[in-house]
Amino acid sequence: MSASNNSSMVQTIHARPEIGLKKFDIHHQETEFEFKEYMAVKAKRVHEALEEAVPLRHPLKIHESMRYSLLAGGKRVRPILCIAACELVGGDETVALPLACATEMIHTMSLIHDDLPCMDNDDLRRGKPTNHKAFGEDVAVLAGDALLSLAFEHIAARTIDVPQDRVVRAIAELGSAVGSEGLVGGQIVDIASEGQWVDFSVLEYIHLHKTAKLLEASVVCGAIVGGGQVSDVERLRKYARCIGLLFQVVDDILDVTKSTQELGKTAGKDLVSSKATYPKLMGLDKAREFAEELGEQAIDELKCFDAAKAAPLHCFANYIAHRQN
Amino acid sequence: MSASNNSSMVQTIHARPEIGLKKFDIHHQETEFEFKEYMAVKAKRVHEALEEAVPLRHPLKIHESMRYSLLAGGKRVRPILCIAACELVGGDETVALPLACATEMIHTMSLIHDDLPCMDNDDLRRGKPTNHKAFGEDVAVLAGDALLSLAFEHIAARTIDVPQDRVVRAIAELGSAVGSEGLVGGQIVDIASEGQWVDFSVLEYIHLHKTAKLLEASVVCGAIVGGGQVSDVERLRKYARCIGLLFQVVDDILDVTKSTQELGKTAGKDLVSSKATYPKLMGLDKAREFAEELGEQAIDELKCFDAAKAAPLHCFANYIAHRQN
Repeated sequence: MSASNNSSMVQTIHARPEIGLKKFDIHHQETEFEFKEYMAVKAKRVHEALEEAVPLRHPLKIHESMRYSLLAGGKRVRPILCIAACELVGGDETVALPLACATEMIHTMSLIHDDLPCMDNDDLRRGKPTNHKAFGEDVAVLAGDALLSLAFEHIAARTIDVPQDRVVRAIAELGSAVGSEGLVGGQIVDIASEGQWVDFSVLEYIHLHKTAKLLEASVVCGAIVGGGQVSDVERLRKYARCIGLLFQVVDDILDVTKSTQELGKTAGKDLVSSKATYPKLMGLDKAREFAEELGEQAIDELKCFDAAKAAPLHCFANYIAHRQN
Repeated sequence: MSASNNSSMVQTIHARPEIGLKKFDIHHQETEFEFKEYMAVKAKRVHEALEEAVPLRHPLKIHESMRYSLLAGGKRVRPILCIAACELVGGDETVALPLACATEMIHTMSLIHDDLPCMDNDDLRRGKPTNHKAFGEDVAVLAGDALLSLAFEHIAARTIDVPQDRVVRAIAELGSAVGSEGLVGGQIVDIASEGQWVDFSVLEYIHLHKTAKLLEASVVCGAIVGGGQVSDVERLRKYARCIGLLFQVVDDILDVTKSTQELGKTAGKDLVSSKATYPKLMGLDKAREFAEELGEQAIDELKCFDAAKAAPLHCFANYIAHRQN
């Protein structure tokens, strides 16, 4: 069974022999240096903005807990995607920054709540004790709630010098990415499928919702506040959905192939807990192939944009496909 | 020590002998019938809108869990206040309805999460098993998260025919009412103060944040989307802060005086768990006096509005002061 047949919610992927995986890799190597710098500069900007968005104030404990997870040094994939999409359609970084921060707050909330004993019961996250291990379960639940509401407040209060209808559209988009038909929907189906046999359509539902939706919303919201045309926004939505799924396929692969120390979280856990993963359903090699195909399809969606301007998102697809942690 | 001295964050309350408590009560009786009808009509409208906002769709379990708590027949105090404030400043009910629903989603989220074993560990809510008792802790955490994000999505997607800058302002207001300096801030200080001696300033912080902030935001957001002038919005903010605190003082009193059966939740729990409450710090009689004073101060803030138009909010203050459950 080919990977593309299992991908009902993503556009059918055609094998394109003229863009072999090798070329895909070479392009990645050519632009690696500049992209690393781009990522580092944007990640620093996002980190500073997040630090400023959640100052250490009264009540101390909740803000310590929020900052503990929010400023733990994640890769800032969602915020950087948000900014890159905004800049691609002609918007300014400062316009996207509050939205970018919001995507990271939401992502952090989902990690804190997913790690809880009543959910995945994880002790380690990014090489540190999980939030509830450090602050207690009650504080961890509340820190997640506070980050989620702050995300929306932050967008509404800080996105200035932009037509306000764009802000409203972005909030609706982001809200739907989190809720019962987004992140939460994916997590609930994931929990329900644990220890059960699941087919590809269920696995794809889980990953499209648990991972891809928020990445998609990050890109789409960036393009909306940046003033992108509807057609461009929808093209970027397809791009983001591919790299969202790609992100999860790579995550599944890394979970099998990397040790706990390298990954900074409890590795091999998905296999032990009999959770459905791509390597388990497809085998490791097919999962790798599927990842490459998703990366290529994502890059295809960028072809109508100016190549230089689309370079960050282009490199992002490569980066996500080839990341090691 | 008089109650007003302990009320640093609420305007100083002056005893006003010309409006005795008796008069306060008589007014309540005079308008009771119409108000009951008003409440019933609005509550029905809100219930229908909530039912429509969270249809039973895939994934079923999360939507069942959300609906279980959201449609459990609460008094809909926050949504009705939101609509009443919108109408008072000249807005239409339909304009406020998405916001009104959002306030109830947020309130429900806070109840679901507060009831969790790692928080208040409550088994009963509104006479039924709490959400985690019915659906499990993992689903309860996620249902709360989904309701919180849906609240913001719902406002953004459904508040149409209104200048979009008002929608953005309302979202910022509501977000700040939930977060680490709102609901969550109140809950965290409440948890930290359990089993400890707290003074009035801490007790007031807890109640102003845990209860009053969301009531305040409900009223303020209604007034904002209704097109209220800044001065009117700020007057209504003061009104709402008073009835918010009043709501909690009455809640504390009811917890002492009512049985579990009448209240639909585990009564006397605050006393048993050595939680700080107004009756415990002031004594029951002083707490009752404080409640009456807060009600009068709230009504004072409505004096500059047309009396007929302000009748619902006027009655609301009486209703909250005199409610039995």
